[in-house]
Amino acid sequence: MNTLGAMTRRRLINLVGRAGGASAAYATMSAMGMMPIPAAYAGPPALETGSGYGKEVVILGAGIAGMTAAYELSKAGYDCTILEARGRAGGRNMTVRAGDMLVEQDGQQLVDFDAAPHLYFNPGPARLPYHHQGTLGYCREFGVALEPIVNDNRGAFFQNDGAFGGEPIRNRRIVNDSRGFVSELLAKAVNKGALDDELTALDREQFLDFVRRFGDLDETLMAYQGSSRSGYRVPPGSGMLPGEKIAPIDMAELLKSDFWQFKLYFGEGFTQGATMLQPVGGMDQIAKAFESRVGNMITYNAEVTQLRREGEGVRVVYTDATGAEHGIEADYAVCTIPFSVLKSLDADFSPAVSEAIEACHYVSACKAAFQAERRFWELDDQIYGGISWTDADVTQIWYPSGGFHEPKGVVVGAYIWSDDIGNAFGALPPGERLAKVVSECQRIHPSFGDQVTGGVSIAWHKVPFSQGGWAEWEDESRAAAYPAVTKPDGPIYFAGEHVSYLTGWQEGAVLSAHDAVRGISERVVASR
Amino acid sequence: MNTLGAMTRRRLINLVGRAGGASAAYATMSAMGMMPIPAAYAGPPALETGSGYGKEVVILGAGIAGMTAAYELSKAGYDCTILEARGRAGGRNMTVRAGDMLVEQDGQQLVDFDAAPHLYFNPGPARLPYHHQGTLGYCREFGVALEPIVNDNRGAFFQNDGAFGGEPIRNRRIVNDSRGFVSELLAKAVNKGALDDELTALDREQFLDFVRRFGDLDETLMAYQGSSRSGYRVPPGSGMLPGEKIAPIDMAELLKSDFWQFKLYFGEGFTQGATMLQPVGGMDQIAKAFESRVGNMITYNAEVTQLRREGEGVRVVYTDATGAEHGIEADYAVCTIPFSVLKSLDADFSPAVSEAIEACHYVSACKAAFQAERRFWELDDQIYGGISWTDADVTQIWYPSGGFHEPKGVVVGAYIWSDDIGNAFGALPPGERLAKVVSECQRIHPSFGDQVTGGVSIAWHKVPFSQGGWAEWEDESRAAAYPAVTKPDGPIYFAGEHVSYLTGWQEGAVLSAHDAVRGISERVVASR
Repeated sequence: MNTLGAMTRRRLINLVGRAGGASAAYATMSAMGMMPIPAAYAGPPALETGSGYGKEVVILGAGIAGMTAAYELSKAGYDCTILEARGRAGGRNMTVRAGDMLVEQDGQQLVDFDAAPHLYFNPGPARLPYHHQGTLGYCREFGVALEPIVNDNRGAFFQNDGAFGGEPIRNRRIVNDSRGFVSELLAKAVNKGALDDELTALDREQFLDFVRRFGDLDETLMAYQGSSRSGYRVPPGSGMLPGEKIAPIDMAELLKSDFWQFKLYFGEGFTQGATMLQPVGGMDQIAKAFESRVGNMITYNAEVTQLRREGEGVRVVYTDATGAEHGIEADYAVCTIPFSVLKSLDADFSPAVSEAIEACHYVSACKAAFQAERRFWELDDQIYGGISWTDADVTQIWYPSGGFHEPKGVVVGAYIWSDDIGNAFGALPPGERLAKVVSECQRIHPSFGDQVTGGVSIAWHKVPFSQGGWAEWEDESRAAAYPAVTKPDGPIYFAGEHVSYLTGWQEGAVLSAHDAVRGISERVVASR
Repeated sequence: MNTLGAMTRRRLINLVGRAGGASAAYATMSAMGMMPIPAAYAGPPALETGSGYGKEVVILGAGIAGMTAAYELSKAGYDCTILEARGRAGGRNMTVRAGDMLVEQDGQQLVDFDAAPHLYFNPGPARLPYHHQGTLGYCREFGVALEPIVNDNRGAFFQNDGAFGGEPIRNRRIVNDSRGFVSELLAKAVNKGALDDELTALDREQFLDFVRRFGDLDETLMAYQGSSRSGYRVPPGSGMLPGEKIAPIDMAELLKSDFWQFKLYFGEGFTQGATMLQPVGGMDQIAKAFESRVGNMITYNAEVTQLRREGEGVRVVYTDATGAEHGIEADYAVCTIPFSVLKSLDADFSPAVSEAIEACHYVSACKAAFQAERRFWELDDQIYGGISWTDADVTQIWYPSGGFHEPKGVVVGAYIWSDDIGNAFGALPPGERLAKVVSECQRIHPSFGDQVTGGVSIAWHKVPFSQGGWAEWEDESRAAAYPAVTKPDGPIYFAGEHVSYLTGWQEGAVLSAHDAVRGISERVVASR
């Protein structure tokens, strides 16, 4: 164990501290890499004003990556053109509201919500981790208002048909009874002397105290007998109501469920832990903020049909809304088209790049959302935002983190990111998808179906110009194929979440666009 | 262990399920108390309209308890008068903004913030647990807008002078490395066979898998070698940046700190776990919503000097702002005056009630807040809301959960609830308090002092008409003395957070006021 193995190192630091005081200890720790270092993000590229003058860049795609590139390059004087296949900017960053259409390759769905600021649905990205400072930096710069999005809610439910008789169990019980269970067993092992070798460096009584508090064990018995952390059968109240703790769950049942496989620690993930944020009023506030700055560079409804190197530069052919063909030449291209789409493009990429494009897998992610005529999750279940989990195909129910106590709300009834389930779900006609979602959500909220209207769904692998939720590099293709697209293919630079280790996050789009911008700028400056 | 002992019961349920199907299993579980029961709160008292006609109630104190009582009683036709010693309603529910004064018995402090909706400070209660449905119910009924308050932030800091060289450590590292440490030791014990007796009922391989995932152990070694949950030394990025995990903390150092004593699981507490809520713009939005409904019943600046039974009813004497004395008679009284104040009142309580009033301890809670000219916690440390903990006297730093990315913000630099520390802090002149807070906050944010202005502090035990943060009943006085004040003393009913098992929470005030209202109503209806 690194943690116990580190004790020699720690002892050394203590000696330094005793001899040289705290500041000497700090300096030594720092030198030994034992101190936190500042977050790596150092802001967007700082290109010299006018350094791009006279250079043309064609940017393929007005998603977050494309608009980031256009915004930064144009500030330095580059002449940017963005070709966007859709009639709107943002790409997978989108928010739908009353009257919007969700388009898939074989049909479209009308968003039949009431018109109100809080009645929206983010079919694509919906949350921002606190450390995604590239994206958050633009929110700050552009004045996009943010609010917390509740991700991990101790009051939400876990439900699994194979455990606990299929009954939904509160998150707080699963999480805290697990801790109690783990602590009790560990305390037993310590008291049996089974870990004496491992604990030589620690004060045994203190360690047992730590274990007891970790799981809220009974102080005398060192046994887990339930904890107020898991909630109450009868909550404490006024007068003569001290409350009655709820009995612990059966750990054998827990092991029958899939809760412990990842749901139990979902909220501890680096990209999922508090504080998670969202733009007030919908994720597209970010896209709109970019669009208001680079919209004049965007040609909408421009579907790229050909991408070729021409001399030192590039030539792009695209069709407009009427089907008419146009050509555009530029010194450089920033290609943000998802590889799921790019692989079918007529292009003259190098073999290594073509191989990477082919190797990149896209997730068949799906979501569905409804307008609820009554916020039953708040009124009946005291759930304010966050996620309930089920082993049914819908996987998750997301409750809104805004509009609390409004009469109505939009609830996400399915968020699927397994290819098999997503492909099957996407193959259903929209009405059947919704019927399935209602039926599965009723395992958690029995009256779900009676309280929702206006459902809408999305299967990202069927969305034109996206053809997938996000990129996923398997270990092998990450090692062998991926590196090729992190470098330019002649004058063509690649950007987008797929050109990052932050796939599925807008931060990957932002940071990879910064890389492309820096790459172009360095080349241009060097050539002057 | 109840959890393993319950397996026989569980096996029985399985048998019922096999014989009679899932619904039979559910029914049996329900009958055996194994299923969650609905939350106990059934809404405010539903008094019959006009049932209080002709009856007068004098309510002492226009805090949350007093206004709740007045609101519910007056709906039923009772003639209510609220006597409030202060010039405002809300009691300890208060929010201060630019130009407000914080008053203590020996001085006052001007709140020197800029005027802006997000630049406020809640010296008293500041958060609402999701299950405090009495309070939240009024927010819903009155249209008080709510938003999440981030309580447990994995990006915030823990700091202890006696551990880790005094360096602040991210919450995510403390929390997740602890899990890894616990898991590794438990896995070792299991693999040594030390827990064979305890695990007979569980599949050993599955249990080890559970343990591995609980702490994110290395799959092959079953050792904790750090986890992405704890964050990165170099975070994953775009291009060729896969990220580099941060090394685990030294658990011997952890045990030297006080982190594990309660800070480690603070966010798992039933009253502190997500989702926590706050009114948009300040906690006093709740007080103001009540006041707009019962303000016409409030006599402000009315300091009660005498409370006596008179015939079947009560007689109250109070002085007005000029010092002139007034008397008021009523059929009933609802007394919400904190016992810290009430114990000095000229009153003819029964001996049991007097004893309870005397026995109730009040916490010397203190807070301090500053206007920051720059939101350095966001800009430098990626902290969005939540709490950093230190073993210094200031105990906590609270970062605002709203106004993200605004140029300025109000940061709470101290929240103290230890009597010893609070009494010492409160004894300092305001300027010395602030200097101490700055100095201690600099252990976490070295440039704290350079970036804040306009500090203000409160020592609740020195606040007239409150004389303490909240009530605390020791086990003995809870058992022996407390019950007396949950019953009326003749025509006098007691309400407030102190008349509950939810001391320190507005919910205790609301629910105890409901009890008083129900008690009066039952008596009046029975007497008609």
